[in-house]
Amino acid sequence: MAEARLKHFGWGREGEAMTEDEESFVLNRYRQRFGIDRFEERAPPTLQDLKLPAPRIAPPASLAPICSSDTHDRARHTYGKSYPDYVRGLAGDYAVAPDVVAYPGRDSEIVALLDWAGSVGAAIIPFGGGSSVVGGVEHRLDRARYRGALTLDLGRMGRVLEIDRASRAARIEAGAFGPALEAQLKPHGLTLRHFPQSFEYSTLGGWIATRSGGHFATLYTHIDDFVESLVVVTPQGRIETRRLPGSGAGPSPDRLFIGSEGILGIITEAWMRLQDRPRFRAGGAVRFKDLFAAARGVRMIAQAGLFPANCRVLDAQEALNTGAGDGSAAIMVLAFESGDHPVEPWMQRALECCRDHGGIAEAEEGADAHREGAAGIWRNAFIRMPYGRERMVPRAIISDTFETAITWDRFEAFHDSVKAATEAAIREATGRPGQVTCRFTHVYPDGPAPYFTFHAMGRHGHLIEQWQHIKQAASDRLIAEGGTITHHHAVGRDHRPWYDRQRPELFAASLKAAKHVLDPRGLLNPGVLIDP
Amino acid sequence: MAEARLKHFGWGREGEAMTEDEESFVLNRYRQRFGIDRFEERAPPTLQDLKLPAPRIAPPASLAPICSSDTHDRARHTYGKSYPDYVRGLAGDYAVAPDVVAYPGRDSEIVALLDWAGSVGAAIIPFGGGSSVVGGVEHRLDRARYRGALTLDLGRMGRVLEIDRASRAARIEAGAFGPALEAQLKPHGLTLRHFPQSFEYSTLGGWIATRSGGHFATLYTHIDDFVESLVVVTPQGRIETRRLPGSGAGPSPDRLFIGSEGILGIITEAWMRLQDRPRFRAGGAVRFKDLFAAARGVRMIAQAGLFPANCRVLDAQEALNTGAGDGSAAIMVLAFESGDHPVEPWMQRALECCRDHGGIAEAEEGADAHREGAAGIWRNAFIRMPYGRERMVPRAIISDTFETAITWDRFEAFHDSVKAATEAAIREATGRPGQVTCRFTHVYPDGPAPYFTFHAMGRHGHLIEQWQHIKQAASDRLIAEGGTITHHHAVGRDHRPWYDRQRPELFAASLKAAKHVLDPRGLLNPGVLIDP
Repeated sequence: MAEARLKHFGWGREGEAMTEDEESFVLNRYRQRFGIDRFEERAPPTLQDLKLPAPRIAPPASLAPICSSDTHDRARHTYGKSYPDYVRGLAGDYAVAPDVVAYPGRDSEIVALLDWAGSVGAAIIPFGGGSSVVGGVEHRLDRARYRGALTLDLGRMGRVLEIDRASRAARIEAGAFGPALEAQLKPHGLTLRHFPQSFEYSTLGGWIATRSGGHFATLYTHIDDFVESLVVVTPQGRIETRRLPGSGAGPSPDRLFIGSEGILGIITEAWMRLQDRPRFRAGGAVRFKDLFAAARGVRMIAQAGLFPANCRVLDAQEALNTGAGDGSAAIMVLAFESGDHPVEPWMQRALECCRDHGGIAEAEEGADAHREGAAGIWRNAFIRMPYGRERMVPRAIISDTFETAITWDRFEAFHDSVKAATEAAIREATGRPGQVTCRFTHVYPDGPAPYFTFHAMGRHGHLIEQWQHIKQAASDRLIAEGGTITHHHAVGRDHRPWYDRQRPELFAASLKAAKHVLDPRGLLNPGVLIDP
Repeated sequence: MAEARLKHFGWGREGEAMTEDEESFVLNRYRQRFGIDRFEERAPPTLQDLKLPAPRIAPPASLAPICSSDTHDRARHTYGKSYPDYVRGLAGDYAVAPDVVAYPGRDSEIVALLDWAGSVGAAIIPFGGGSSVVGGVEHRLDRARYRGALTLDLGRMGRVLEIDRASRAARIEAGAFGPALEAQLKPHGLTLRHFPQSFEYSTLGGWIATRSGGHFATLYTHIDDFVESLVVVTPQGRIETRRLPGSGAGPSPDRLFIGSEGILGIITEAWMRLQDRPRFRAGGAVRFKDLFAAARGVRMIAQAGLFPANCRVLDAQEALNTGAGDGSAAIMVLAFESGDHPVEPWMQRALECCRDHGGIAEAEEGADAHREGAAGIWRNAFIRMPYGRERMVPRAIISDTFETAITWDRFEAFHDSVKAATEAAIREATGRPGQVTCRFTHVYPDGPAPYFTFHAMGRHGHLIEQWQHIKQAASDRLIAEGGTITHHHAVGRDHRPWYDRQRPELFAASLKAAKHVLDPRGLLNPGVLIDP
């Protein structure tokens, strides 16, 4: 049975959505928070309503069969999934729709597409699942310089090509979506175990290009460590790195492309390091009096070398908002897993670390505890969250997240400062208080990756400027206090002003020089990371 | 009390050497191996005997106090510690001595030195401990292009500048030698735990520039993962990366400089991630019938997620040669350590993995087992090895090592092929059989880092060509069979022909473009990694 089409507005495929129960749970939280009975609701335009600018370029006959300028194809590839993306989608603003969307099925077709784009002077936007929340897949072209925009959708390149059971690795095409990738590995008893929140609707190539953060809260936090080798197609030729478990031969070639966000070339396949499927588990939730107490427990665990698969912390308000807690305590969701050995000694020591900082374990523990109780509720809420935005934006609810990382010595002051700046900006932008919560998505021996969520009641017609005011204040403060503008959401076009302050100027100049070698005409994803 | 000077020929300081017992143990092994009673021995020239070319450049008065063109300073900085380095030292060939050696004490002095070198057109050779075995610190200049060579010795910049106990990190100057670095951390209960074989006579900056491999046999194998941020001084300005526990903001700036081997800039300091000093240990040695059986045990451990600190394997011959075994079995040296918790459950599971592949644990286990028995003997032999070369080369013994990495699926065929090619080359070069042994220095879930040692009986006057023939054959085979030309010894000038085959051409072009931005005149360590 053919799958439904991907939505042009919203998360996932047509027909998929939050359930009524989920929606009323979330909306009730907002009603209570803002003292509102009903929302002013606007309906997103249907596909038939959309007016797209006429395409400025058309593919040659040889490429026409894998290209489309159909309204659905162009609309669905216009934006990512950021807050302002939804606002513009709601307003029916598709002025920046790509002119052509191509669906290559192999490297040689990508080479031909790059050649064609070069010959007509069109920008090339690599596209995996389109889940970017940082303006990574939206062209914002200098129209004098670029004569069109070609979006290159890798979705047809989703096969696992080769499996090396001895080394636990697989060669996988970059367009593989999370579920299809895992389904192909499962018969071999293997798993990539990279489960970003976007898992269902994002791709391997997208994860690598954006340094995606995944399932593991410690140790293997980013996709980076799972990359054994890469194939990258650039306008100047093909790059294939050597498949090695480790190497010390010069700066890592892979690391130049990991996080390159489509500006250096198109990642078309990768050998990926895999895991055995877990057979042993231990986990549960631990309550702490507040976020800082939980942070001290997390720090002790992170520095103990125990490497829990899950070790996430929700502040009391975030626990309440997601239904994982009653708002009186911060919650740590803790889990160990292994395909090799029972993990009880690991779990027991981690719980001791928690107790040392006042943590109290929830009653239920054991094999499946991670799917029950606070941990299970949190897990389910986490997976369903992306479906929320298409219901909130039409109601003028401003809700977004931003994430960073900071060393432990600075964490508490950093948290308070960033939270205060964001709260103040919400008041300024909307005229009333909102809410800012914090969780840890990943933790390191030297510091956490705090993930902030904010909620504000906006006003139709002003949502983007209101959102922008809050985003600007939060990001300014993040950078001023020493954090990174992104731990795993990437830079794209939206984070550029802060990324530019964060990264050394001479590094940007070096990256630009490298780009000029690989993409001398500056066609690849212009505006992302650096100016072309 | 002032320390003795570093030797101009040999390892370490004047007065340090192998003991008579150590020397006779090693020489007896060679006598038996080659059926030789006595060696034709040549004495290395004394410092007074050396004839160095007159320096071609002289520093300006402002820099003169931190510069030297003294014979000892120039001779000591002429070579690294590779086999051909010793042969040329033995022959009194110091034609490539640097013209000037500078000892800066701070970044501003480095900036002044770079400016001066630029103004006179001199090449700049960054120098840490000078332990390179790949021609990393020896200029081989195009004399028409470069008007001299300035070696920049970071040895005066060895302080731990700042400690962040909460994040377990320290800001350390790049010229810190291993023992001094650890001595400064010890009062804080912290340790970097990076113990390459060169530990005593190599520096933090050298480790980072060459992607040094250290103490940990699994997980944190290279220095790379311990780097939190860097300061790099380039001819175009200073680069300071942001101190972060993790980030997803574009390609990692740190990773461009880690492994850059002095061609992009001078690493002058780094924030390094540290460990608590271990309080709990478990370890011992395990005997296997042969290397491949041990490899299967190691693979199981590496894929189990147990992360032993030590997990090294010696083939039967290597175990015999170092005194760790009787030659009848391969030996695995296994150790777990923690500053946080008892590690018995980890050790017990690792021993089960060994038993599954026929491994038999040595009787002694427990807290200090890693310093006793086969493990202890191996450890001591490992640390003392660098002192051997200055006694072997004068006796025309050819003994060297090379190291690589390969995925598990290819390991056995790879091992046999590389070993056979090296053995054949020894016969061709010396007219009689030699010996090739293998151990694993580091292991990954997807493959080991095999480390080969070879022994041959050479002839004075022909040592370099004999060595070169063997090195060439071994390296050709390594690359043909899919390995890396180096896992942790670096590329330098000596590994260039094979590195050039291994790394993608477009990556080299990108690196060259980045270098041109940072070092537009191509003065920094010319000939290393890429042509300037």
